[in-house]
Amino acid sequence: MRVREIMSAPAITVQRGASLQDALELLATHHVTALPVIDETGALCGIISELDLLRAIMPNHAEDMGENPHEKLAEISDITQTETIDPLMTTDVLTTYEDEDVAHIAAHVSTRNIRSVPVLRNERIIGIVSRSDVIEALFRPDEELLNDLTADLADEGLYDWHATVQRGIVTLTGNGNAEEAQQALAVARAAAGVRKVSITTA
Amino acid sequence: MRVREIMSAPAITVQRGASLQDALELLATHHVTALPVIDETGALCGIISELDLLRAIMPNHAEDMGENPHEKLAEISDITQTETIDPLMTTDVLTTYEDEDVAHIAAHVSTRNIRSVPVLRNERIIGIVSRSDVIEALFRPDEELLNDLTADLADEGLYDWHATVQRGIVTLTGNGNAEEAQQALAVARAAAGVRKVSITTA
Repeated sequence: MRVREIMSAPAITVQRGASLQDALELLATHHVTALPVIDETGALCGIISELDLLRAIMPNHAEDMGENPHEKLAEISDITQTETIDPLMTTDVLTTYEDEDVAHIAAHVSTRNIRSVPVLRNERIIGIVSRSDVIEALFRPDEELLNDLTADLADEGLYDWHATVQRGIVTLTGNGNAEEAQQALAVARAAAGVRKVSITTA
Repeated sequence: MRVREIMSAPAITVQRGASLQDALELLATHHVTALPVIDETGALCGIISELDLLRAIMPNHAEDMGENPHEKLAEISDITQTETIDPLMTTDVLTTYEDEDVAHIAAHVSTRNIRSVPVLRNERIIGIVSRSDVIEALFRPDEELLNDLTADLADEGLYDWHATVQRGIVTLTGNGNAEEAQQALAVARAAAGVRKVSITTA
């Protein structure tokens, strides 16, 4: 399975120099947890997460919110209007590309600091892959995967082809037509959750 | 704004003793990033996150996936079937309750280790609040909030009442009817993204 099959595209990005408030509103509106940061030319120059933003503006302990947390939030709100994201973003960004095997990025997102990986094509951001996307790709229940794959095969008119799935490993059984076999392989490899595909002819 | 207004309910939970595979499939199927763990009586006994699970099964470095990452994944798949979540879960779990002010839990989820907070009622889990839920509650764009609130006031038949919003702070303007004023206040306080409500009569 390739990155292109599991990435979210387009990625929601934020401009360098944006206020904390702008970044927080982008997170809130688009329901994402991190934003790649782009410069004036559109090139990637960093990434900023919801945790980066909250840690910068919130007190470290709940008790420090004081007796009136809403007054504290109003103070915080002033900060979010005036400060920019630039000092808070991570500038050493791990990136990937559409044809990368999902298995290769699984190890990266298993570390504490990497939860989102921008996908680049010709140095432009075309999507983003999250830790959750990787889990959904690698640990999908076999039954769900089989239902999708069966529908995909039918959509392509491959009525002579049938699949079985065990722990994400697909076995295709079909007729001896070599062209159809190639089509069926391509369909199975593109299905979310597939780790490996093998083929047998009935 | 109260926790009940922003929590996801019901929470997706996992039983103590479940396999890593079971937990990973729950994360993948329900698109969540953490699962409260319950014992045989249904009581909360821990929480396990996608990061806890991935860190336990994935190599620390992408290079350690080897030349054939799919063989490595097949090995990992054996582990996920046989190992249980019990040694991996966090047992010291921060919890909250429906009437808690969202501002109070904002500081908690601003720390690295807390991304999800189970919501309890009579020691039973009735929902869960994530870091993203808190951001969406506290940093929603004023315009979005105003649109929702205007619709909510109309739904309640409060046609004489109008709202303005600035940085999440709502000012209501309406007629002198005390009962309607109380209704309008309740509607505004329940709207997602509202920090504070004040009232003026025209």
